[in-house]
Amino acid sequence: MRTTVIHGPQDIRLEERPRPRVLDPGDAVVRVVASCVCGSDLWDYRGIRPLAAPHPIGHELVGVVEAVGSAVASLLPGDFVIAPFSLSDGTCQACRHGAESACDQVTVVGGTDKEGRQLDGAQGEFARIPLADSSLVVVPEPVDPARIPSLLTLADVMSTGHHAAVSAGVGPGTTVVVVGDGAVGLCAVLAAARLGATRIIAMSRHDDRAALAREFGATDVVASRGDTGIAAVKELLGGNLADSACECVGTEQSMAQALGVVRGGGRVGFVGVPAGGPQLPVGQLFARNITVGGGMAPAHHYIPELLPDVLSGAIDPGRVFTQEFGLEDIADAYAAMDERRVVKSLIRL
Amino acid sequence: MRTTVIHGPQDIRLEERPRPRVLDPGDAVVRVVASCVCGSDLWDYRGIRPLAAPHPIGHELVGVVEAVGSAVASLLPGDFVIAPFSLSDGTCQACRHGAESACDQVTVVGGTDKEGRQLDGAQGEFARIPLADSSLVVVPEPVDPARIPSLLTLADVMSTGHHAAVSAGVGPGTTVVVVGDGAVGLCAVLAAARLGATRIIAMSRHDDRAALAREFGATDVVASRGDTGIAAVKELLGGNLADSACECVGTEQSMAQALGVVRGGGRVGFVGVPAGGPQLPVGQLFARNITVGGGMAPAHHYIPELLPDVLSGAIDPGRVFTQEFGLEDIADAYAAMDERRVVKSLIRL
Repeated sequence: MRTTVIHGPQDIRLEERPRPRVLDPGDAVVRVVASCVCGSDLWDYRGIRPLAAPHPIGHELVGVVEAVGSAVASLLPGDFVIAPFSLSDGTCQACRHGAESACDQVTVVGGTDKEGRQLDGAQGEFARIPLADSSLVVVPEPVDPARIPSLLTLADVMSTGHHAAVSAGVGPGTTVVVVGDGAVGLCAVLAAARLGATRIIAMSRHDDRAALAREFGATDVVASRGDTGIAAVKELLGGNLADSACECVGTEQSMAQALGVVRGGGRVGFVGVPAGGPQLPVGQLFARNITVGGGMAPAHHYIPELLPDVLSGAIDPGRVFTQEFGLEDIADAYAAMDERRVVKSLIRL
Repeated sequence: MRTTVIHGPQDIRLEERPRPRVLDPGDAVVRVVASCVCGSDLWDYRGIRPLAAPHPIGHELVGVVEAVGSAVASLLPGDFVIAPFSLSDGTCQACRHGAESACDQVTVVGGTDKEGRQLDGAQGEFARIPLADSSLVVVPEPVDPARIPSLLTLADVMSTGHHAAVSAGVGPGTTVVVVGDGAVGLCAVLAAARLGATRIIAMSRHDDRAALAREFGATDVVASRGDTGIAAVKELLGGNLADSACECVGTEQSMAQALGVVRGGGRVGFVGVPAGGPQLPVGQLFARNITVGGGMAPAHHYIPELLPDVLSGAIDPGRVFTQEFGLEDIADAYAAMDERRVVKSLIRL
C-alpha cells in the first residue's frame, strides 16, 4: 500500500509499505477514506521536533473496516468508522471517567502499540488500529460523502476545540476568548457557539481565518496580542475580562495571553500541545483564582455528543479544510499548510 | 491599644499603638473578640519570607463592630462579625462572580489599603477594616461563646479548606486525597466530608493531626510521601487513583504529590500559598488531562453557605485550635505552632 513517511524537515514522501493485517485479537484494519494534516505534524515538518528516524505520519482518519481480530465485538467489515487520534482501552479508570486520552494504554494513530510496534500513519491507504473495539466509532450508514470532512474533524480538531471549550467552562451566557486561529482554534469557536457562549472573541491576524471564525460564531475578532490584546478584549467587553479562554496554540506566549484575558475566578481550557514545556505560573493562578484544565482531547468521549450535530448539518466543522488533495499530492498538502495557503489540508483517497 | 508586631524571625512583640478610627466612609472599626495564628504567619516568623520592616501581623478575626463610616449601610455598632482575611469591594467583575479574593481592590487584613496605609493586624485589640460593607459578614445574635473558634475558622482556614475541596471538584461519591495536615488540610478533610466524598485519604505523618483528620471524616491516613505515597493511595483505592486532590501546603513537592495521586481527567484544588514560586508542569497536566484550580479562597463567598452548619454544630472546624492563648501570650502562641505543639493557636481577647 501507499503511505506517507516523513524523512526530515520538508521531506515528506509517499512510499510503498506492506499492507497491514490483524496482528492482535483486538485489532481492526481500516481502509482510509479521508485523512488530513495536523498542525502538530508540522512540528516534525518544520524541524521543531527533531526526528530520530523516518516514520509514518498522520493521526486523523475516517475509513471503512476491512478486517477485525477475534476479540473485536462491536465492529464488522464494511463499517464506516471515525478513528479518534488517541486509542484507548475503554476499561481503565481514566476511560471509565471519560478521559480516554489519559488511558493507561493510550497510544496515538501512527504511534507505537503496547508491544512497541510502529503503527501505520493515517496518511496512507490502510491502517492497523489496536484497541479497535473501544476506540473506533461507527457512523450510521449511509454516509453522505459531503459530510466526510466534518466527520473527519471529529477524529481530532473538532473534538479538541470542543475539549478546549468544555475545559474552559463555556456554557450559556458566558464570554470566551479563543487564542489561536488554526483549525483547532476555529473549532473551539464553533464549539463555544454550540455550547451557548454569548460573546466569542477570536484572536486572529489572518483575514481568511477571521472570516471563518465569524462564520463559526465569533462575535468579535481581535488582531492585537499581549497587553494590547488584553486591552482590546476589555474594551469589547465594556471594561470586563472574559469568563473563559481557550488556549489552542501551545506556546508560553499563547498561554500567557489566555491567562491574561480571563477575569478573576475565570477558566482557561488548553489544548495546544505544550511546545518546549512552558510551565504554568502558579502564583498568577493563585492570586487570580484561575482554573486551568484541558490537555489531549478525549475525542472518543465527545464523538457521541458531536456526531448527531455533524450528521444533521447543525455544525459543519469540515469547513476548516480549505483545500482537498489526493494522496499523491501529500507533499503539497504539507507545503500548503506550512505556507499558510490553507487552514487545513484534507487528503481524500 | 495592644497589638502584635513582628520585628524579625522569632521576634513577636505585643506593642501599644494608637486605637484605630474610621478614616474612610467605607471603614468599620472592629473590637477583636478572637484571632489566631496562621501557617502563613510562620513564614515571616521563620524568616522564610524576609521582612522589610517591623509590621503588624495577623489576618483572621471575629469581633464586634465599634464604629462605621458614613457609607456603611449594612453594619451597625454592636454587630458580631466575621472578617474574611481578604477584603473586597463587592462590585468588580471578580466579586460579582463570587471570586472576591481576586477583587480589583483586594487587600488582606493586616495589609495595606488602596491609599497604601498600613492596616491593623488581626492579632490586636482593634482593627480598622476598609471595604467593610462588602467584606464583613454579620453573625446572627446571640453568639454562643463556644462557637467562636469555629466562627473564626470561617475567616480563613475553613473557607480555604472548602475552596480546596470545591476547586478539586469534590462531590457526592468522589474519592479525594488531602495533601497537608495543617489546619487548612484538616479543614479540607472536613469540607470534603461535608460535600459527600465517600473516600477521603489524609496524607499525615503526625498522630495528633491524623486523629483529628479521622474525626473530621478521613476514611484513611497515608504517612508516606512521593511515589511510595502514590502507591499507598492506589492500594487503598483498589488499584485506582483519586478523583480529586486538595493541595494544602504550597511547595513544589506537595503540588507534585497532589498531581501524582489523581487519575487521568482528575482535578487538583490548590490553596497552599505558592512558596518560592514553583511552576506547574503543563506537560503533565496535558498528558493526563488534570485540571488545576483554586488559589486564595473567596471566604466572603463561602461564609453564607458554611455559617449555618457552624451555627447548628453540624461542623465544628474550630477543633483545629488545640490551644487557647491570651493576647499577652502571643509570642508563645507563635512558638507553640512553630514547634508543632499545637495544630493552630487561638487568641481569645
